[in-house]
Amino acid sequence: MGLVLGPNQYGKAESRVVRIYRDSARHEIRDVTVSTSLRGDFADAHLAGDQGNVLPTDSQKNTCFAYAKEKGIGEVEDYALGLARHFVDDVPSVSGARVVVDELAWERIPVDGRGHDHSWVRKGQEVRTTVVTVEGAGEEQQAWVVSGLKDLTVLKSTGSEFFGFLKDEYTTLPETHDRMMATSLVARWRYGRLDVAWGKTYDDVRATLLRTFATVHSLALQQTLWEMGQAVLTAHPEIAEIRFSAPNKHHFLVDLEPFGLDNPGEVFFAADRPYGLIECSVGRDDGPDPGLAWSSVPGFI
Amino acid sequence: MGLVLGPNQYGKAESRVVRIYRDSARHEIRDVTVSTSLRGDFADAHLAGDQGNVLPTDSQKNTCFAYAKEKGIGEVEDYALGLARHFVDDVPSVSGARVVVDELAWERIPVDGRGHDHSWVRKGQEVRTTVVTVEGAGEEQQAWVVSGLKDLTVLKSTGSEFFGFLKDEYTTLPETHDRMMATSLVARWRYGRLDVAWGKTYDDVRATLLRTFATVHSLALQQTLWEMGQAVLTAHPEIAEIRFSAPNKHHFLVDLEPFGLDNPGEVFFAADRPYGLIECSVGRDDGPDPGLAWSSVPGFI
Amino acid sequence: MGLVLGPNQYGKAESRVVRIYRDSARHEIRDVTVSTSLRGDFADAHLAGDQGNVLPTDSQKNTCFAYAKEKGIGEVEDYALGLARHFVDDVPSVSGARVVVDELAWERIPVDGRGHDHSWVRKGQEVRTTVVTVEGAGEEQQAWVVSGLKDLTVLKSTGSEFFGFLKDEYTTLPETHDRMMATSLVARWRYGRLDVAWGKTYDDVRATLLRTFATVHSLALQQTLWEMGQAVLTAHPEIAEIRFSAPNKHHFLVDLEPFGLDNPGEVFFAADRPYGLIECSVGRDDGPDPGLAWSSVPGFI
Amino acid sequence: MGLVLGPNQYGKAESRVVRIYRDSARHEIRDVTVSTSLRGDFADAHLAGDQGNVLPTDSQKNTCFAYAKEKGIGEVEDYALGLARHFVDDVPSVSGARVVVDELAWERIPVDGRGHDHSWVRKGQEVRTTVVTVEGAGEEQQAWVVSGLKDLTVLKSTGSEFFGFLKDEYTTLPETHDRMMATSLVARWRYGRLDVAWGKTYDDVRATLLRTFATVHSLALQQTLWEMGQAVLTAHPEIAEIRFSAPNKHHFLVDLEPFGLDNPGEVFFAADRPYGLIECSVGRDDGPDPGLAWSSVPGFI
Repeated sequence: MGLVLGPNQYGKAESRVVRIYRDSARHEIRDVTVSTSLRGDFADAHLAGDQGNVLPTDSQKNTCFAYAKEKGIGEVEDYALGLARHFVDDVPSVSGARVVVDELAWERIPVDGRGHDHSWVRKGQEVRTTVVTVEGAGEEQQAWVVSGLKDLTVLKSTGSEFFGFLKDEYTTLPETHDRMMATSLVARWRYGRLDVAWGKTYDDVRATLLRTFATVHSLALQQTLWEMGQAVLTAHPEIAEIRFSAPNKHHFLVDLEPFGLDNPGEVFFAADRPYGLIECSVGRDDGPDPGLAWSSVPGFI
Repeated sequence: MGLVLGPNQYGKAESRVVRIYRDSARHEIRDVTVSTSLRGDFADAHLAGDQGNVLPTDSQKNTCFAYAKEKGIGEVEDYALGLARHFVDDVPSVSGARVVVDELAWERIPVDGRGHDHSWVRKGQEVRTTVVTVEGAGEEQQAWVVSGLKDLTVLKSTGSEFFGFLKDEYTTLPETHDRMMATSLVARWRYGRLDVAWGKTYDDVRATLLRTFATVHSLALQQTLWEMGQAVLTAHPEIAEIRFSAPNKHHFLVDLEPFGLDNPGEVFFAADRPYGLIECSVGRDDGPDPGLAWSSVPGFI
Repeated sequence: MGLVLGPNQYGKAESRVVRIYRDSARHEIRDVTVSTSLRGDFADAHLAGDQGNVLPTDSQKNTCFAYAKEKGIGEVEDYALGLARHFVDDVPSVSGARVVVDELAWERIPVDGRGHDHSWVRKGQEVRTTVVTVEGAGEEQQAWVVSGLKDLTVLKSTGSEFFGFLKDEYTTLPETHDRMMATSLVARWRYGRLDVAWGKTYDDVRATLLRTFATVHSLALQQTLWEMGQAVLTAHPEIAEIRFSAPNKHHFLVDLEPFGLDNPGEVFFAADRPYGLIECSVGRDDGPDPGLAWSSVPGFI
Repeated sequence: MGLVLGPNQYGKAESRVVRIYRDSARHEIRDVTVSTSLRGDFADAHLAGDQGNVLPTDSQKNTCFAYAKEKGIGEVEDYALGLARHFVDDVPSVSGARVVVDELAWERIPVDGRGHDHSWVRKGQEVRTTVVTVEGAGEEQQAWVVSGLKDLTVLKSTGSEFFGFLKDEYTTLPETHDRMMATSLVARWRYGRLDVAWGKTYDDVRATLLRTFATVHSLALQQTLWEMGQAVLTAHPEIAEIRFSAPNKHHFLVDLEPFGLDNPGEVFFAADRPYGLIECSVGRDDGPDPGLAWSSVPGFI
């Protein structure tokens, strides 16, 4: 009976990098959290404690900061691809790298009807994110980009039904033709190629997700997600697949009858736990193979 | 040696109430978290376990939901005042009540250039909040309103200095004439009267705080807060006092010299802990007495 | 109409200090989070941005680390008193200081029936805490110590009733003679003097709180807290007062009748929000004045 | 170009179930958080909004509570297996189910040297967890059990080195022969069979992990994890594989030289972010195929 080292990776998680562009008095800002993971020939580190092949996580962190200066942080996808390729190309023991970048958005503080040059307020709640994986050397090298957003909290105060569902001996839920529907969406889309206008696409996907959520009359969160995915893939041939993780944040209609009040969809209790959790993927029948794109992406099937 | 019951209060914390106005196809939404605390004649509950004077926290919660229907949730201050006065006026054993309401903002999802009727996306990060205290019966009854905002995250990428400070044997910090300054602001202002346009004032105070933060050249966070407070009180005679709790969210300039790179205020490490914490109040020399307004308001001097 | 600077303080929050005693192969460990706040003559910093009186929060942090070496961290109360007195005595512009220390407990990892010399595992959940306030110079100097614990999560699976309570038109809660009672306790006790065996007292108060919680048949959380406070004050003349903040973490009996099952106190749903919140204080009729002891202690009346 | 529905699942996440055994005056308690996910024939729900095959997540939640009464909660693995098999066997549209159970431990409050009958205090910090996956019908049905623990926070105050590592142009970290090593461990082990003494094995694995962490002289966290995995697999033939996710919680030695103090491994700053993250797996060269065991287990390669 022999023991073997299985899959392994290591890196520096959650380096908080803020990059200011101050080429003119009108600054630009990028605020990102970077996590790097390296895969490769690290058996000796495990089996014998020999670190000869191990680039310290501290060096990885330094690289994240240095690259923010050297290469800059334009689109998070480019920054992540640059870092991942560097680790794979330049560190001999590394055969694969995954770089995750989360970006917090800021907007200029309005002063006299115009955004201020160097004063900022955090914008919105959701987080733009990308997961980049690079594997292999030279001609064989492959790269995958999965971009997305987290914590996009949306709600429909009507236009959502839930009826005709399967009932078993543990079913007590009544059917409804008018309910609140709310979720804090995580959506991640895998690109089928790398020559993409990352930022423009992100903005457009976000707008498409919101617009579709708003306008689809919902018979189930599953159907809404499918419609959202369909809308994104139809508009964006460069996207091979989109995956959703959508908590169904329950809003329960409060029984006000004991107090002599009716409640026709007006007063709700917003519950914390438990919550429904709907996960699904929309892809193409002729899409490219995902390869390692989704490997260890948190929270997905 | 006798033991005595000291200050005490009890209530229901963090009821999550969502109120939809659906009088027309164009809905309105209010999303609040309500906490109630009652003060009064509860000695028997403590000393003898006799609940005869104790209105259950469950009833308090029910009242929050019922009032959302009966009285509605217009401005959070009115909703909180209504609840607090009800407990004091209608529950015989209650002599004082504190009601805290936090409000989450939503905005309409844009579809074809117009906000949707009943589909919403969470707006911004910060939370509007109010703490209402009502004490006493009949003619003697007093009410205090402290409104505010939490988690307003702002940053200046230049226009902030820190020099000329006191140095002792534990001081190693270098002086600087150009640093990042960032905070996640909590501001609470006490009204000197109750006939206030709550929502309009909130919007204007928020805008004033942001504008002042943006335009003041900062020699210290203390000075910036004072200027912000001064601007608010100057513009709003109905506000008697404003208090700030401002974490100094440190952004450290990264030393890139080991990598042959200079770093003239471009790449920063955003640290989590420790953080500076600046707390101060700006008031009026002839302002009304705060009374119980600040009693047990979290996180303030 | 003149504007005035009101109460203010500033400091460094949440410095994470770990101190290892390695005088022998058998190490000792202290793991604390320290927050310092200074009060004094800081008007110029606010009004004019003049930092001449302001000891940087960075220096305060340095002092916390240096004192961990110079004076050591024995009992958190001594460490906090040392820091607070230093700031008041040695920094000319400082007239008062508050130092909060939270301590995480570790225990030795058991190996062959004995605790290991230098390998540790986190012990328990709760946090030991102290809030020390020092005010004034020389002979006039006063010091207050409020020690306590946070997040002590306890539960009674029977031995708790709730009946005979006040009912109003919003009351729907049924009376019960057997319910679950659970809380995540915060208790803080103010010492009446400073020559105290801090650690021994802490251990004994903790044990007394637990034992009383366990053995009192509860008619209300209020009564349980009073009994707990009484037990502590009776056993500890050096304690002048104890305050509690106790969330009533509701465990709702699940209705299993639709599934043909009875549920005599066996299956519960543990709810997150809302929760009851009971706050009270037990003191002595001849106790010393609290002075500034409770000033800006979070979460208390 | 056709769009296709990809992998999907749905369920109820984080139902908080507390089960009291009160067959005698000496109660027993189980406190678990259950998440269920169903896989199967749900295309119509997505493509057409037809819920005919969809058992509501509310029914799944009801089942978790009802099973806590009907089948009880002995070992979390048995409880999870019972639920997962029920969904697959009894719900026609369901072909696979994943059930995750996290258990919080309680211990009896000591009174007069003995644990109390029905009063409890939360024990320790770490969470026992299991992820059970059942797939397929009848003879073909397969089941996988991955058990583990989360948030086991451990620290070595010496006995840890880090030297001889790979250096590149971004490396500034000095080598060290004596450092602090701390982690908040997640370990999950996959069983190779199902006739296991779940609780006894859990206790033994936990003790083995702790003992090995304590006694191995560490040259890297990777090596320590390998040794821990090796110790577990050597002692437990029923375990096919163990995976670790170990944040390297950095404790930086503080430079006290500016204050005239030396610091021979005594005073450390415990940092929050970034942190190293080491992930690895130890398996057997002849172990059974993992099948779906690790599918969508959070945070693993």
